[in-house]
Amino acid sequence: MRFFSDNAAPAHPKVLEAIAAANRIDTAYDGDEWSQRLDGAFSDLFGTQVRAFWVTTGTAANCLALAALCPPYRSILCHKDAHIEVDEAGAPGFFTGGAKLTLLEGEGAKLTPATVAAACDRIRNDVHQVQPAVLSITNATEYGLVYRAAEVAALGALAMERKLALHMDGARLANALATTGENIGDTTWRAGVDALSFGFVKNGGLNAECLVVFRSDLADEIAVRRKRAGHLLSKGRYLAAQLLAMLEDGLWLENACLANAAARTLAQAAPDRLIYPVEANELFVRATAEEAARLRGQGFDFYDWGPGEIRLVTSWDSSREDVQRLGEAIASL
Amino acid sequence: MRFFSDNAAPAHPKVLEAIAAANRIDTAYDGDEWSQRLDGAFSDLFGTQVRAFWVTTGTAANCLALAALCPPYRSILCHKDAHIEVDEAGAPGFFTGGAKLTLLEGEGAKLTPATVAAACDRIRNDVHQVQPAVLSITNATEYGLVYRAAEVAALGALAMERKLALHMDGARLANALATTGENIGDTTWRAGVDALSFGFVKNGGLNAECLVVFRSDLADEIAVRRKRAGHLLSKGRYLAAQLLAMLEDGLWLENACLANAAARTLAQAAPDRLIYPVEANELFVRATAEEAARLRGQGFDFYDWGPGEIRLVTSWDSSREDVQRLGEAIASL
Amino acid sequence: MRFFSDNAAPAHPKVLEAIAAANRIDTAYDGDEWSQRLDGAFSDLFGTQVRAFWVTTGTAANCLALAALCPPYRSILCHKDAHIEVDEAGAPGFFTGGAKLTLLEGEGAKLTPATVAAACDRIRNDVHQVQPAVLSITNATEYGLVYRAAEVAALGALAMERKLALHMDGARLANALATTGENIGDTTWRAGVDALSFGFVKNGGLNAECLVVFRSDLADEIAVRRKRAGHLLSKGRYLAAQLLAMLEDGLWLENACLANAAARTLAQAAPDRLIYPVEANELFVRATAEEAARLRGQGFDFYDWGPGEIRLVTSWDSSREDVQRLGEAIASL
Amino acid sequence: MRFFSDNAAPAHPKVLEAIAAANRIDTAYDGDEWSQRLDGAFSDLFGTQVRAFWVTTGTAANCLALAALCPPYRSILCHKDAHIEVDEAGAPGFFTGGAKLTLLEGEGAKLTPATVAAACDRIRNDVHQVQPAVLSITNATEYGLVYRAAEVAALGALAMERKLALHMDGARLANALATTGENIGDTTWRAGVDALSFGFVKNGGLNAECLVVFRSDLADEIAVRRKRAGHLLSKGRYLAAQLLAMLEDGLWLENACLANAAARTLAQAAPDRLIYPVEANELFVRATAEEAARLRGQGFDFYDWGPGEIRLVTSWDSSREDVQRLGEAIASL
Repeated sequence: MRFFSDNAAPAHPKVLEAIAAANRIDTAYDGDEWSQRLDGAFSDLFGTQVRAFWVTTGTAANCLALAALCPPYRSILCHKDAHIEVDEAGAPGFFTGGAKLTLLEGEGAKLTPATVAAACDRIRNDVHQVQPAVLSITNATEYGLVYRAAEVAALGALAMERKLALHMDGARLANALATTGENIGDTTWRAGVDALSFGFVKNGGLNAECLVVFRSDLADEIAVRRKRAGHLLSKGRYLAAQLLAMLEDGLWLENACLANAAARTLAQAAPDRLIYPVEANELFVRATAEEAARLRGQGFDFYDWGPGEIRLVTSWDSSREDVQRLGEAIASL
Repeated sequence: MRFFSDNAAPAHPKVLEAIAAANRIDTAYDGDEWSQRLDGAFSDLFGTQVRAFWVTTGTAANCLALAALCPPYRSILCHKDAHIEVDEAGAPGFFTGGAKLTLLEGEGAKLTPATVAAACDRIRNDVHQVQPAVLSITNATEYGLVYRAAEVAALGALAMERKLALHMDGARLANALATTGENIGDTTWRAGVDALSFGFVKNGGLNAECLVVFRSDLADEIAVRRKRAGHLLSKGRYLAAQLLAMLEDGLWLENACLANAAARTLAQAAPDRLIYPVEANELFVRATAEEAARLRGQGFDFYDWGPGEIRLVTSWDSSREDVQRLGEAIASL
Repeated sequence: MRFFSDNAAPAHPKVLEAIAAANRIDTAYDGDEWSQRLDGAFSDLFGTQVRAFWVTTGTAANCLALAALCPPYRSILCHKDAHIEVDEAGAPGFFTGGAKLTLLEGEGAKLTPATVAAACDRIRNDVHQVQPAVLSITNATEYGLVYRAAEVAALGALAMERKLALHMDGARLANALATTGENIGDTTWRAGVDALSFGFVKNGGLNAECLVVFRSDLADEIAVRRKRAGHLLSKGRYLAAQLLAMLEDGLWLENACLANAAARTLAQAAPDRLIYPVEANELFVRATAEEAARLRGQGFDFYDWGPGEIRLVTSWDSSREDVQRLGEAIASL
Repeated sequence: MRFFSDNAAPAHPKVLEAIAAANRIDTAYDGDEWSQRLDGAFSDLFGTQVRAFWVTTGTAANCLALAALCPPYRSILCHKDAHIEVDEAGAPGFFTGGAKLTLLEGEGAKLTPATVAAACDRIRNDVHQVQPAVLSITNATEYGLVYRAAEVAALGALAMERKLALHMDGARLANALATTGENIGDTTWRAGVDALSFGFVKNGGLNAECLVVFRSDLADEIAVRRKRAGHLLSKGRYLAAQLLAMLEDGLWLENACLANAAARTLAQAAPDRLIYPVEANELFVRATAEEAARLRGQGFDFYDWGPGEIRLVTSWDSSREDVQRLGEAIASL
């Protein structure tokens, strides 16, 4: 019974069907009919004209966006626990040509306008210090917290004031929106987001993520950077088809709702052990090494987060029975 | 009737089946059981211990290899028509951190030891000129010519003498071996190849290529570089499964034989029009703009290569009827 | 008797005096009074508002300019014998973050609009091929030929048409102008040059070169890139003072006239041996290995350029006697 | 009366004399007789065979060393207030091709083995997190504290244990040694330092710093990287001559003693206001904005370090009278 990572979950059957349906001859790269439909499909979803680029990893989506938004000699403000800092092997430095990540504090990996403003104020405006160019936030955060649309908008307003571009790592944006119920446009471009890494793989996709670009002036550069980074697949139709399948009938939101519901069920089983409120599909739970061992002994698989802490992640396919069993197991620790 | 590119061909049914069979929960990244079997499967194929890395594009395979083999301040010797020079958007410069491609001449995009030696001799050995570190060849070449094992070995011997690493872009290595009938180990590591981009996507794969590393000292660095370039997919099992399916029962070689046979059939239809001998699955054919238009009018799709030249590419799924029809159409131009 | 390189010449006494005069306490970096006068002094010289950055090498000047003008994913068109290609250890790749040099042919390292246009036309306008962003020319060229203002203007017009920025490597611009007698503004910004590496070290400077930027939108970025490349010296006044001394009373042009006159004298001694017309301070002379040895035996020092070719370079301090002696020695070979 | 920065001080007369003495024709780059004597002179000083590279800035020295020691995909451990992090415009990211600085805490910008070990322990050993490759320390630190030889050796032992290279930013190493009186070899290579940025410009030089490399395997790469970064001056003899002048008769140490003595005099005037012990030539002094203004009103020039803090820097030429006057002014605040 795996609560290890939503990356470990299988692909949704409709995604596999879409791949099979795309299995015929077509133009290479992104000239095929599926890829050509992406901009339209995502523009409809967001309620504005966007450019949508399939890529195969969140790291690629994040770092192509950051490279287009941040010159090599400037910096990206992000939380010290942001995925781009902690879990991408230095990819932002690679894609940007050496730009710096300036690390900020914030409970549960969330940033506030005050924190960001203070960080900007600490930087002398001269050639000796690296000037910030981008603010990057993760929604839902690395600790499963959610930015509401108004919170993003407050950061967006500050970013505009400080002449920073705004990037959102939305590896679990679907989970965030499943919780807030807010409009996806309100939570992104209307709040000032310039580029969004929109995650699908953790949410039922097979290997397609989407980089959504709200500023048309960035799109051509990103197209070139995608190719240059080896991320322009020659048979792109198999990625585009996955994304289109996820958008159809709101499968992406439906899957996220399932994952979140499972997480809520678990949360209710152990309200006192939660390190952060459960707002998406991740739980950070206090558990001694002995308790963790006991859970593992019962067949549950998960990640040790730190001393006395474990991480549980649910996904679109978390079975009701497994979740219930784990909830009981935790409750009876 | 598409003779545009082997990139346009569909994936082989066995590849799709393998993906479906891998569609269950497993460990993320490359910790899954399919990915864990790759080193063994490719070691068996090559008859030596190798490290095999799935990636999604030939550009990624080529450039991860080049980055590991060439420091930023040195250069890669390659043909002036090499894919890494002409069709990868400058990816070698990106992955290596600014290393240079030094371009060599050679009929049909083939290099000879004499050409390479002369290029080395032209470079002053001082800090002002960029010193070469790698020789990169493409087999089959960009013009569909084939290096026999002995030819690779001659280049390998020169590379060793000149202290150059040897990289092979084997996007169509299967097609080359289908023609030569030579041993894959003899054509690669026994001939001095340090790293091989082994292509599968043009040959029936969906979106998995393989970077095969023959020098164990490079493997850890390549693993990190793959992650850092956003090429470590979180559900890697779907790539590994494709590669294993291609290796099983020699599907990779069987597919290449089919593509080559189709190319030979076409070649026999127009022996006088061929710009290069047909040794793999590509034909470069003399045809006036009017002749090209006439072929297109009959429903054939292909690439205009230059003034008075067209390129025809066959693939594993080229239908016997289409091929025959195109052959007749060319013959009767 | 050294005719090896103008780099080997000493600094002009006025340059040393200016350094000594600047040897007092002042603000660090480029906040000192000498550095602060640079923009004004160079703006006066060029007859337009410029930004002037001291640097210590031509490579730094060239590559800071190229980095500001060329994104990492685009290319710089230049002659195949350009200094940036041949003698800067790949520095353009380093400073730009991996941009490519696309090499053009041209007699005596000179480019023509037709050559540049043809090179542009050969590049497919898609994401697979690297699109050019900059045209870089060297004046005087690496073979001592001179672009007249009208020639630069023709290249400038083409560059504008093709949306290319125009960079001039003017390591020996002074020598070019000493020959043409044309206006420095006409030969640079009025002809479309966006950034100029203006050489002083080969022309009597000690270790100060000047990067002159004609587009105000580039200046702030270049200031940051200069610091980031370790080229913002902490006691910049010693560089600025050198440049101001060179500008005073036209010392830069006077020195170049002396060097050119010496070259002309040598040229007249051996008109039949010249590989290129002598338009600046470099001579490329046919001489067998035996002849070269004979000259060396007489105490002359120079560079072997290729089989049967030697390079002679004069400088501001070439003594009349040495020049005469070398001229006679060549004439009597 | 400037106590702003030792960068603002003039060059020592002997340095100017050495430049003038080098003002004759010689081989270009570093082939001249002065440059050729550097390795020997510095090897004598350090008591071991070293390679000594002149450069013009501390940033260049630091970052060339870091680039040779740290692959682009790994990280450099340093103090959060280290010059490479705070005041070099992101140059480490540029020179290394995107390596990361991992920032550590420590009183007065000093690091301890315990801090470094703890930082290493926090990094998961997998491809997702950036693995450290280098430890960089500054001696004297950015707050004027000194590492004694034993302290460096303790860090060196840890570095070896953790397979980290050890770099020392010795912009003010002379000042540190003037205080400790310890042997320069004991404080560097015998303590495990692999490469040292040895500062001269703040200590009476004009524009020559020295990168001293204790590992012969790094030297060739650094020579190439220096050229590639535009830091191989064409008339290098004027830099080499400066360094040789500074070494002669121990001028470098003598100058540092003068600067330190001035700092000690100031320290004694205001013992209660000192934020850090004064161990080199920098004082960090508590002073209200009003007090700072009062000092400025009396003609003293210095840097505001933070709210309620000022920085005073003495140098080799600080006049006894100015120092005394400033001491009295502070005492009577």
